[in-house]
Amino acid sequence: MSDLRVSRDELLRFATAVFCANGMAPADARTVADVLVWANARGVDSHGVVRIPIYLKEIKAGTYKPTGQPVLHQLLPATFKLECNRAPGPVCMMRGAAQAVDLAEKFGAGIGLVSNPTHVGALGRYAQWIAERGHAAIVIVAGIPLMAYHGSSVASIATSPIAIAVPGAADAGTPLLLDMATSIIPGGRISEALAAGKPLPEGVALDAQGRPTTDAKEAKTLLPIGGAKGSGLSLMFECLTGILAGAPIFAALANVDGAPRPIQNTMIVALNVASFRALPDYRADIGRLQAKVKSLPRRDGVEELLLPGERADREAARRTRDGIPLSRKLWVEFEAIAQEFTVAPLRGS
Amino acid sequence: MSDLRVSRDELLRFATAVFCANGMAPADARTVADVLVWANARGVDSHGVVRIPIYLKEIKAGTYKPTGQPVLHQLLPATFKLECNRAPGPVCMMRGAAQAVDLAEKFGAGIGLVSNPTHVGALGRYAQWIAERGHAAIVIVAGIPLMAYHGSSVASIATSPIAIAVPGAADAGTPLLLDMATSIIPGGRISEALAAGKPLPEGVALDAQGRPTTDAKEAKTLLPIGGAKGSGLSLMFECLTGILAGAPIFAALANVDGAPRPIQNTMIVALNVASFRALPDYRADIGRLQAKVKSLPRRDGVEELLLPGERADREAARRTRDGIPLSRKLWVEFEAIAQEFTVAPLRGS
Repeated sequence: MSDLRVSRDELLRFATAVFCANGMAPADARTVADVLVWANARGVDSHGVVRIPIYLKEIKAGTYKPTGQPVLHQLLPATFKLECNRAPGPVCMMRGAAQAVDLAEKFGAGIGLVSNPTHVGALGRYAQWIAERGHAAIVIVAGIPLMAYHGSSVASIATSPIAIAVPGAADAGTPLLLDMATSIIPGGRISEALAAGKPLPEGVALDAQGRPTTDAKEAKTLLPIGGAKGSGLSLMFECLTGILAGAPIFAALANVDGAPRPIQNTMIVALNVASFRALPDYRADIGRLQAKVKSLPRRDGVEELLLPGERADREAARRTRDGIPLSRKLWVEFEAIAQEFTVAPLRGS
Repeated sequence: MSDLRVSRDELLRFATAVFCANGMAPADARTVADVLVWANARGVDSHGVVRIPIYLKEIKAGTYKPTGQPVLHQLLPATFKLECNRAPGPVCMMRGAAQAVDLAEKFGAGIGLVSNPTHVGALGRYAQWIAERGHAAIVIVAGIPLMAYHGSSVASIATSPIAIAVPGAADAGTPLLLDMATSIIPGGRISEALAAGKPLPEGVALDAQGRPTTDAKEAKTLLPIGGAKGSGLSLMFECLTGILAGAPIFAALANVDGAPRPIQNTMIVALNVASFRALPDYRADIGRLQAKVKSLPRRDGVEELLLPGERADREAARRTRDGIPLSRKLWVEFEAIAQEFTVAPLRGS
C-alpha cells in the first residue's frame, strides 16, 4: 500500500476545518493546523497531522480545551508566564513567542514560561518564528517520562527537546534552526522499526527489565544522548520549566494526588540580536559560518555536511512542491473524521 | 610516583601569590586562583592549577593581560556585553555573573556576553555562583576547534560546554549543577589514556585522517555526543556567543586576517526564580525531584543514581578535607615558579 499525497494547502484547509468543527476559533484552529502541517512538511511526521485523531480524543475526554486561552501573567519586566490550563499548545506557544519578542524589543531579552498547555507540537516552529523576526531563540520543553534517567531501568524523564534558532544569512533567508530531543532516537522510531520489522540500533533503548535491546517489540524506554549528559539536560529542563512554573511533571510523580498533572511545560527565550550588534553584520557572519561548515573536509563516505535544520528545510521545499505523503491508515481515519464533523473530506493531489 | 597532596587553602594561597607576582591586583588574583582551585577540588583537574604554567606563558607572550579589566557595555535594559580584550577569564566571568544577577533582580532576567577574555576555566563555577544567589543560570561558551563537526574529518568546532544551575533544595544547600561539554569525552581524557597506556573507548575520537581510533597516540579529534546533536549545539553556541559579540571564532577561520582571534566567548543567563514563584516553594520541589531521582529503579550493576554535580560535590567535600592531589611533574613546575617569582613555595599537607 503506497502512501497517498496531499497538497500542503489542502492539508492545512482540512486540519483547520476539523478544529473549527470542534469549537476552536478560526484563527486558533489555523494556528494549530499550521504547526502540525509545518512538521509534516519538514518530514517530522510524528509531530504532524497524525496527532489530529489524538487531539480529538482528548477534546472529547475534556483534557484538551479547544476554546481555552492562555492567561498572561506579566512578572518582572523581562519575564512572563502563560497559564494555559490545557488550552491548545500551538496557540499558547505562538502567544508566548510573540510576548518574548515584544519584551526582547524593549528589554533586549524576554523569557517566559508556558505552563500546562496541550501538546505543543514541533518545538522548532516557535524558535524559527522568533528568529524570522531577527531575534535569537532558545525554546525548551519538559514533558512526560519516556526516557531512562542515566542508570535507571525505567522511563523516568522526558526526551525533552531543545530548539535554538538564529536569524539566517540573508534578510529573507531561513533561520539556522537546531531542533533536537535529548534521547538518541525519537520514540516514533520504535514504531517505525516495528512496522518495518527491523531491529533498532545498539544502545538506544531498554526493555521492560531495563536491559539493552535492539528488538523493537521489546523496547520500552529510550536512552539519552551521552548518558549522564542528555539525561542531565532533560532533568535541568524540568527544573527550568515545570518546577519554575509551579507545575512540575517529574517531581509530581512522587506525590500523585489524583489531579491531572501537566503533560508539557516550556520556556521561551528571545534575545534581541540588534541589542548586541547590527543585524546585517550578524547575518553576514552567519553566512560565513555556513560557508565554512560546507567547505570542511569530510569523513570517508560523507557526501555533504549539513547545517542544523538544512535537511528539513529541503524536505519542506520538496513537500511543498510535491505534496505531503499520508499513510493509508491515516487517510481512512481522516475520512471518518470528515464524516463525523461534517467537514469536506481531504482531496489527494 | 604517587601524587602529593596540598590543602585547598594552601593551594589557593600559592596560586594567588603567583598571579599577584605577575602584576595582577590581589582581588583579581584571588578570583582566578579560586576558580582554578574550585575545579581541582571537584576533581576536574584539567581545569585546575595545571593551567598556571600555561597562563604564565601567555602573560609573557602578551596574550594574557594580568591587569586587564572588562569594559561593560550596558545595552537594552536586560542585556549587556563585557569587552574583555584578554583580561583574566575568571575576573571577567565573575563580573558578568554579578551583572547578570543585578539585571535579573530588576528585570527578571539578565543576559550578557563576555567577549574575548582569556581562558575562563570551569564554566560550572559561574552557574553555581548565580544559583547560590537564588537565580537559575545558563552559561555557555564557544572556543577553539577541538571536535569534529558531524561528518567532518577534522577538528572544526569547539567542545563548547554548557552549565545549567538552579537553587538547591535547602537555603544553604548546594545548587543542582550540570556542567558538561558537547564532546563525548573531554580532551584531557586522551592525555590520561596516553599516560596510562590504555585505549580510548570506541567512537569517541578520530585520527589525523578522520578515521575512528581507540589509540590514544593516534587520536587527534574529539567526537560530539549524539552526532549531529552535540555538533549542532556547539555550532549554535558559537552563534549565540562569538558571532553575537562580533568576535567570531569559528567563522573567522574562513577569513584569517592576521589579527589574534578570541579563544573563548561566553553567554551568561540569570533568571530570577522569585519572579516566577516563591523561592522556598521552588526549593521544596527541587528537593522532591532529587528524592525522586534517588528512588528510581536502577539498571543491573548500578549502585546509585547521581544528580547533576553530585559526584563533584562529594569529591569537593573529600578533597577539602583530605587535600588536593598534585602530580610530581606539576609540583616540580611549581617549585620553579616559586623561585622565579619569589613566592613562598607550596607546602604539602
